[in-house]
Amino acid sequence: MKRYRGYLIDLDGTLFRGTELIPGALSFIEKLAGANIPFLYLTNNSSRPPEQVAEKLRGFGFPAEPDQVYTSALATAQYLKEEMDSPSVFVIGEEGLKRAIREAGICINEEQPEAVVVGIDRQFTYEKMKRACLAIRNGATLIGTNADRALPTEEGLLPGSGSLSIGIAAASGVEPLFIGKPEPIIMKYALEKLGTSPEETLVVGDNLETDILAGIRGGMDTLLVFSGITTHEMANKSRIRATYYLDSLRDWSI
Amino acid sequence: MKRYRGYLIDLDGTLFRGTELIPGALSFIEKLAGANIPFLYLTNNSSRPPEQVAEKLRGFGFPAEPDQVYTSALATAQYLKEEMDSPSVFVIGEEGLKRAIREAGICINEEQPEAVVVGIDRQFTYEKMKRACLAIRNGATLIGTNADRALPTEEGLLPGSGSLSIGIAAASGVEPLFIGKPEPIIMKYALEKLGTSPEETLVVGDNLETDILAGIRGGMDTLLVFSGITTHEMANKSRIRATYYLDSLRDWSI
Repeated sequence: MKRYRGYLIDLDGTLFRGTELIPGALSFIEKLAGANIPFLYLTNNSSRPPEQVAEKLRGFGFPAEPDQVYTSALATAQYLKEEMDSPSVFVIGEEGLKRAIREAGICINEEQPEAVVVGIDRQFTYEKMKRACLAIRNGATLIGTNADRALPTEEGLLPGSGSLSIGIAAASGVEPLFIGKPEPIIMKYALEKLGTSPEETLVVGDNLETDILAGIRGGMDTLLVFSGITTHEMANKSRIRATYYLDSLRDWSI
Repeated sequence: MKRYRGYLIDLDGTLFRGTELIPGALSFIEKLAGANIPFLYLTNNSSRPPEQVAEKLRGFGFPAEPDQVYTSALATAQYLKEEMDSPSVFVIGEEGLKRAIREAGICINEEQPEAVVVGIDRQFTYEKMKRACLAIRNGATLIGTNADRALPTEEGLLPGSGSLSIGIAAASGVEPLFIGKPEPIIMKYALEKLGTSPEETLVVGDNLETDILAGIRGGMDTLLVFSGITTHEMANKSRIRATYYLDSLRDWSI
């Protein structure tokens, strides 16, 4: 097996499920840390700032600093700054997204925004949807942190950020631009932050449609672990092929 | 021009725009009423009960009884009763929809519904979306009163009932079944209520994609009036062809 010099590692379904640690995940991360191999925790979840994500990871026993966490919220803020020259934005989302945008020095403007940014928002209302639509009809660009239609939780599959974006897009007559996995945008920024080339970086995750596809599109090798959303049957049927498949990260040699 | 024995007539954009009466509409309806030609006011708007719609129409001077109004809410309730044997339902919608469902003797059940019914709901929240998704994932059927993605108002184009249904459908991994125009379901029920055959009935409206398409699908002749959403340019480009086109209903001879 090839030796990789950098790792981009998914969280939910890969290292933990909700509040439950996935067996083998801790020893995998400890091996990387022990060997001084750089890695990032890479998540489509825009709801929490990196500090809170790192805290949650440390609660499971993972070594994790905020600077090792990269989220779709951070990638969205970076995209707004670098590619769109920091437009004023109307944000539908939670603290992780709002803080990422504010900390990138981007102006939040509810009245006449140049962009509408949509992440998961459990306080979503018709009123927010309406403001978004009027802004988009008035020329604002629609950006979604990630296209995930459903969010796996202990209550079941709940509406994901992508479903909010799809509803707003339908009402506004546009298509959203998505930033998170499987889009190449978040992978480009994550690689820049990690400091390794695509050829020497491995993407690790439990989701073929997001993690693995993002890796493939970014020219990286990929490792699918069957600890989350993907079953063996789904993997057999899918046209998306990972480089490696494992039942547990315990069995991975770095 | 053929003489029609029954008329199915759209409201917003055809007889009025918001709070403004459309010139020529009043004399058109008065001609029908004076000649004792049966007609129904037929609207995709599920927000108001027939009594309130009739009251609004009378406010403009139209002769209108509740029994002359047929809405997508009434058609949805009728469909639930006649085609689905009155399942228990979770309703996302306003008073017009909730009342139509209650008056059809259908049980509203928020916990374990057999169907989720979605109409325009200006009190829509993530919490309602979540309940709908969990019910659908648990086997409930998703029914939308109408597929209109945007709602023309004095504030601009606001999110329509169809956009709420599309977001919920995306989050639940299903396709909604729609009842309102241009679906044949509402036209079948409206014709039954009117008591005329498709061949002797004219559909009148301002929208090619809903009114006119519904008429065509239902085997009826159609009259497009350029007082609402459709411009001459849109009509020229569209593959949907009305039987007649008029700038004003004033020019129609019954």
